[in-house]
Amino acid sequence: MKELVLLRHGESQWNAEGRFTGWADVPLSVRGRRESELAGRRLRESGFQCGAAYTSLLMRAIHTLNIVLAGLDRAWVPVHKDWRLNEKHYGILQGRNKREVTQEMGEELVHRWRRAYDCPPPPLPAGDARLPAEDPRYASLPPAMLPATESLQDTHRRVRACWEELLRPALYATGALLVVAHGNSLRALVMHLRGLSPAEVEQLEIPTAQPLKFRFDDDMKLLP
Amino acid sequence: MKELVLLRHGESQWNAEGRFTGWADVPLSVRGRRESELAGRRLRESGFQCGAAYTSLLMRAIHTLNIVLAGLDRAWVPVHKDWRLNEKHYGILQGRNKREVTQEMGEELVHRWRRAYDCPPPPLPAGDARLPAEDPRYASLPPAMLPATESLQDTHRRVRACWEELLRPALYATGALLVVAHGNSLRALVMHLRGLSPAEVEQLEIPTAQPLKFRFDDDMKLLP
Repeated sequence: MKELVLLRHGESQWNAEGRFTGWADVPLSVRGRRESELAGRRLRESGFQCGAAYTSLLMRAIHTLNIVLAGLDRAWVPVHKDWRLNEKHYGILQGRNKREVTQEMGEELVHRWRRAYDCPPPPLPAGDARLPAEDPRYASLPPAMLPATESLQDTHRRVRACWEELLRPALYATGALLVVAHGNSLRALVMHLRGLSPAEVEQLEIPTAQPLKFRFDDDMKLLP
Repeated sequence: MKELVLLRHGESQWNAEGRFTGWADVPLSVRGRRESELAGRRLRESGFQCGAAYTSLLMRAIHTLNIVLAGLDRAWVPVHKDWRLNEKHYGILQGRNKREVTQEMGEELVHRWRRAYDCPPPPLPAGDARLPAEDPRYASLPPAMLPATESLQDTHRRVRACWEELLRPALYATGALLVVAHGNSLRALVMHLRGLSPAEVEQLEIPTAQPLKFRFDDDMKLLP
């Protein structure tokens, strides 16, 4: 049997302030650090022993992972960071207050931007300093691959590629994998693993710092 | 120009208690965490921007690295953990109080075990639960490669191999590398980089959490 644990990072400072985050690189809140410690303790008590860990290029996920691995007494496992596990890019909404945007744009549109499968927020304009192409952590990627906004469908596409190329083989090889990522990149991954429809994924929410366990048989078939 | 920063981990709990550590996996002390934060701040103020980081399989080094990368706002750089950067293995001395061992065995012998190039402490006996072969983090290595004690010469041999195979090419490729390791694995690395003799390395001490910068020209020749 193979065991996969998905974990959304602990509360970030912008989660706490009700702001859209996306690819903005925001630290954990004090509560987020505490939640992460609890997640590590829960995983340890459940007997989970990962052989490797994967996370995004964003500090709220990386710091959550570091805290969890310390709690598991497994700081020594290999850790791989991949941009394809990043949160959905939120375009021009990044940094804006969710309540204010809702007042401005209406509840229905904001709900679609946040939850619908194929509805990206407006993109960051060319030349915007927040574009990933300006950020050294993405310097090794062709600029055309880097988003200025994303729908969940766009996120799904890159998360699926990451699953097929990296996570799936690593889970098979190690037998137990920990993936610490984000609300929407994990919605996309769960959608892929469970074969959910766009309508089903609209209902799916991933809470912060709650380990989600998936079990696979030795042929890598997901167990119910 | 290429820039290499070597950093010994912050004070560990056993450093604080005056105990031999070696490959025992001991957490940072509160002071060690604070030292690591300071090291991150100093490196940031110096403008250092590493493209990758390397560390050992021991938590005092890994946690120091995590703290330093957070301070540098570069949690996203690739991190590689290699057993060859581990501290010198201290054989049966591991866990023992340095003062007590000195009273028992005499100052001269203990000094040689700690500082001489070719004088390993007595090895852990077969079947000892502290042997690395019993530890899952070394499961992928042939047991015959794993030490039950080491001289600095033994440590030097594996550190040199790690430099040639991993660190040197990574420094060349990224232009700026951070290596967080241990008192003796860093003594061995500095010995190799500076071409020190066994007599010279006996005098060399590496303080905790003090970044040591080395500069190389574009042909990877160490600059004075």
